[in-house]
Amino acid sequence: MLLEQIQQTNDIKKIEPRDYPLLAEEIRQFLIEKISVTGGHLGSNLGAVELTMALHLALNLPEDKIVWDVGHQSYTHKLLTGRRDGFDTLRKYGGMSGFPKRKESDCDCFDTGHSSTSISAGLGLVRARDIQGGTNTVVSVIGDGALTGGMAYEALNNAARMETNYIIILNDNNMSISENVGGVSKYLSNIRTSNKYLDVKDNIYDAVRKTKYGDGVVTGVRRVKNSLKQLVIPGMWFEDLGITYLGPVDGHDVNGLVRVIREAKRRKNCVLIHILTQKGKGYGPAEKHPARFHGAEPFDVATGVPLKKKTKANYTDVFSTVMVKLAARHEDVVAITAAMPDGTGLKRFRNLYPERFFDVGIAEEHAVTFAAGLAVGGLHPVVAIYSSFLQRAYDQILHDVCLQNLPVIFAIDRAGLVGSDGETHQGIFDLSFLSSIPNMHLMAPKNKWELSDMMKFAYDFKGPIAIRYPRGTAYDGLQEMRTPIEMGKSEMIYEESGIALMAAGSMVCTAVNVYNSLKAQGRSCTLVNARFIKPIDEDMVRRLARNHELLVTLEENVASGGFGEKVRELVDREKLGIQVLTVTIPDEYVEHGNVDILKKEIGIDEESVLKKISAALS
Amino acid sequence: MLLEQIQQTNDIKKIEPRDYPLLAEEIRQFLIEKISVTGGHLGSNLGAVELTMALHLALNLPEDKIVWDVGHQSYTHKLLTGRRDGFDTLRKYGGMSGFPKRKESDCDCFDTGHSSTSISAGLGLVRARDIQGGTNTVVSVIGDGALTGGMAYEALNNAARMETNYIIILNDNNMSISENVGGVSKYLSNIRTSNKYLDVKDNIYDAVRKTKYGDGVVTGVRRVKNSLKQLVIPGMWFEDLGITYLGPVDGHDVNGLVRVIREAKRRKNCVLIHILTQKGKGYGPAEKHPARFHGAEPFDVATGVPLKKKTKANYTDVFSTVMVKLAARHEDVVAITAAMPDGTGLKRFRNLYPERFFDVGIAEEHAVTFAAGLAVGGLHPVVAIYSSFLQRAYDQILHDVCLQNLPVIFAIDRAGLVGSDGETHQGIFDLSFLSSIPNMHLMAPKNKWELSDMMKFAYDFKGPIAIRYPRGTAYDGLQEMRTPIEMGKSEMIYEESGIALMAAGSMVCTAVNVYNSLKAQGRSCTLVNARFIKPIDEDMVRRLARNHELLVTLEENVASGGFGEKVRELVDREKLGIQVLTVTIPDEYVEHGNVDILKKEIGIDEESVLKKISAALS
Repeated sequence: MLLEQIQQTNDIKKIEPRDYPLLAEEIRQFLIEKISVTGGHLGSNLGAVELTMALHLALNLPEDKIVWDVGHQSYTHKLLTGRRDGFDTLRKYGGMSGFPKRKESDCDCFDTGHSSTSISAGLGLVRARDIQGGTNTVVSVIGDGALTGGMAYEALNNAARMETNYIIILNDNNMSISENVGGVSKYLSNIRTSNKYLDVKDNIYDAVRKTKYGDGVVTGVRRVKNSLKQLVIPGMWFEDLGITYLGPVDGHDVNGLVRVIREAKRRKNCVLIHILTQKGKGYGPAEKHPARFHGAEPFDVATGVPLKKKTKANYTDVFSTVMVKLAARHEDVVAITAAMPDGTGLKRFRNLYPERFFDVGIAEEHAVTFAAGLAVGGLHPVVAIYSSFLQRAYDQILHDVCLQNLPVIFAIDRAGLVGSDGETHQGIFDLSFLSSIPNMHLMAPKNKWELSDMMKFAYDFKGPIAIRYPRGTAYDGLQEMRTPIEMGKSEMIYEESGIALMAAGSMVCTAVNVYNSLKAQGRSCTLVNARFIKPIDEDMVRRLARNHELLVTLEENVASGGFGEKVRELVDREKLGIQVLTVTIPDEYVEHGNVDILKKEIGIDEESVLKKISAALS
Repeated sequence: MLLEQIQQTNDIKKIEPRDYPLLAEEIRQFLIEKISVTGGHLGSNLGAVELTMALHLALNLPEDKIVWDVGHQSYTHKLLTGRRDGFDTLRKYGGMSGFPKRKESDCDCFDTGHSSTSISAGLGLVRARDIQGGTNTVVSVIGDGALTGGMAYEALNNAARMETNYIIILNDNNMSISENVGGVSKYLSNIRTSNKYLDVKDNIYDAVRKTKYGDGVVTGVRRVKNSLKQLVIPGMWFEDLGITYLGPVDGHDVNGLVRVIREAKRRKNCVLIHILTQKGKGYGPAEKHPARFHGAEPFDVATGVPLKKKTKANYTDVFSTVMVKLAARHEDVVAITAAMPDGTGLKRFRNLYPERFFDVGIAEEHAVTFAAGLAVGGLHPVVAIYSSFLQRAYDQILHDVCLQNLPVIFAIDRAGLVGSDGETHQGIFDLSFLSSIPNMHLMAPKNKWELSDMMKFAYDFKGPIAIRYPRGTAYDGLQEMRTPIEMGKSEMIYEESGIALMAAGSMVCTAVNVYNSLKAQGRSCTLVNARFIKPIDEDMVRRLARNHELLVTLEENVASGGFGEKVRELVDREKLGIQVLTVTIPDEYVEHGNVDILKKEIGIDEESVLKKISAALS
């Protein structure tokens, strides 16, 4: 095994060039074998094997810096930097992260997770190098999907016309998580498909021939321009900005990649190397179903079939169904996603109502203001974005939707702890940042039926409103409780006295368990489903205060600006005289791992809540 | 006067084409006269007179829609839609807004204020029109400065290759508020300066001549490409995306503009009209000093000199001075602004340390992640962005700076009420959105000396930290109080018993007045300068609780997630047994007007606070 010769950073340089294909093959087998057991991002990593090898061959790590955009394609990089053993604990609690982490290795120079940050970060490293007189090379690796994000463009605009070396590698596999959208993507795919060099030459001849006999100069130039439009001069779009373009290059040819990276290192400006790769390369099922193998659960290597069969619906499925129903009933319902038609469950909507569906690419900011425009235009948009990605659009929600008090529904999936993706993906801030916004309304369903009811309620409410729900299996308890949703009203589930539990969304399930334990202990206990986080149900808090000794709030969100703080504010302001215990996520980033373990670690699982209640009562 | 014939929307269509230059002249005189009295955005409006006339002539308002990016250039639009009288109350409380407002006119179709939103909003209107079978025209007007914002690019990417009519007008005056930066700007300026048509033709000949005798095909094509790089084919950058480019067009020729807009209306796709205008056109002082006349205070028309002389320093001046001192002392200090070198006070820093200064354009997201990159690279960046614009970078602060716990200082100017710019510009959310972020630290100075001290403290603290300070004259009271800054510690100013006032930043000045009034009433009173909003000084709160009957918190921020909520949370959680009164901005958008009037209206001025205290005590 060649792979066994690679124990630490730069060991790859001892491998003979003729063995590179074999090494690539071994790395692929290793990744498939490991990820089939742990789960993880397979497709993007299989696509980046040769690129990573070439970077490690052409650069000198850790002095030289590689910034991986998003970062889920960094598995080969981890393998080549002495972290082979980490793959057995990949994405597990306490184990190796699925993303670059500075604390894991000196070869991970910048932590990533969200899209389109790598050029900004890379530029920072370049400028810091120059100011301090350094000579190392900085490379940012960005996918064509991430290039649809506005930040990447802001950074490109700043990288342009720089008079110092900086290398951007555009890893173009013609897709992001889903199929790519928009003008940039089409432009890149034109480069991919054009029979470049000869065509260019012929077309230039044609163009000029037409000019010669044109009707005067202006018409002639128009024709030239139209002819030029037909041909693709590779990379002129980047060159127009002032960035040197090299490519397109075969992204699965290690020696070719090494050559072009070495060439790029010699330039005294910003160079973009456009490489063409295939997502899932070398593993049939992943080549065939790129979306399914983007972030894969454990699977059978021979067939590519997931090992665990999904038996229960998750919230995404419920959302998917209710969206189709809403659309059938109301012609003004339109749906927007930011490169997540599968992940958000909007695929069915897209298939049934393609003209009312918009995938805007990895562009959360545009998604939200575009929704505001649709709403002003008379439609009722539903924006489906994961909680942690919606952070990108805070200003757009505040400045474009809520300031104009527009009817836009935010369907916030992956709210709360998401588990194995870790720190960058936990959706634990949305209650806080959305609560600070005037005119915003904010709900969280207790179970799958309530998500459905809340979506319908949100449609009938003609203003800005958000519904947040967690990743994974939808809670299907409390089916018998299905009282109508009313603005700002919570739902009484079990009413007694003593301890009152008031839980928001996903924490209702935990609260039910806590309730049962307390009852088993012989305690008198009340359980309330909060339903609304903004506005909170003040009447219910007052009512609970009257005949309980302890009010426990439960939420999967940080404390500052969250649900518990609002309840406590009311209790203290109106001197309601009840002791309040707020169960929240502590003021810290929560790392990757199984959600049940994480909940225990941060003290929001059933057992921890029971202990906190005991402590509060004693 | 031609202007008197224009009483309402579409009246301009009654004016004879030969009189357009005269009308433009009258509009300019009107704007100069009015703005010289009220203050307002002069330069951008003088530049957009002919464009606005042409739009009103070529379109049919209010059926057709114009989305003004940023919106401060919409004065002529207001004038042509029956709002002439409004100019006497421009930007005054209860008067006409300086930005488009749907509630003001049916010709204002989308409220704006922040940059780079107009294409997203316009696309929403286009899609809504098509879904509902409408036939109206939608036009977005965006400046070349706003085009450096990532959102605009996300939207362009989505507008590309659309098969329906949509018009984008790029109003290119070769600057944003300050001089423009980056590749896009340089590209546009190449279009401006190239002797387009003939040059293109000659260069194409040259290019092909070289090809014919080149060393084989590839080399030949490389040469062709290099030659093509030298020439500018107007708009190919946009055409490459799939957007039809028309231009460049003289932006001060009404008839020419009308013709090109009519041509654009006939297309069945997205058309970008590139027009060239001059900021401040027709008024000498504004042409000469575009930055000064961007947002002007009242001025003398004859000389352009401001009527009111600035006598006292504002916080921006203080920041400006301390930055230069910090930079002299510490080589690792670098400064970043997003198109605001004047507004943030970084101009002096730029002049003295050009290689350590970065203006990234209107690109707040990139600014913050770029700073993270600089910090990882070993420098200590100071990011100076206005409070309301920093909202754009919430995710970057959370995901790129704080998650990696990097030494980045955020200097947040215009925090709190900003006055005449109104709803979109009030900086009243930063305490909330920053407090929710783990690892973040947050300060606000009581007076000008403290801003200086806090900047030095922030430098010595090697982690993520923000300082927020308001617009306008810096408070210069309490000069004698200058105790050293300590992490998380507040400052006792006057200590007695009875009522304790604990004020954050700009509200210390109000609290001093409240203190004096209470003392004059014979009340015992304590005054504390909070200094830290995150973490709050828990020890001080406990100490105040021991010998006071009322604890009043004061802040210029919304309640949810703000300073008062944190104090109350502690008081209630630890059962400190003191009554808390939180003075905050209510959960609503605050419109434009004089800051003193606004404070009264929303109940955070001295008198309101005194009333609230009386009510609380009774």
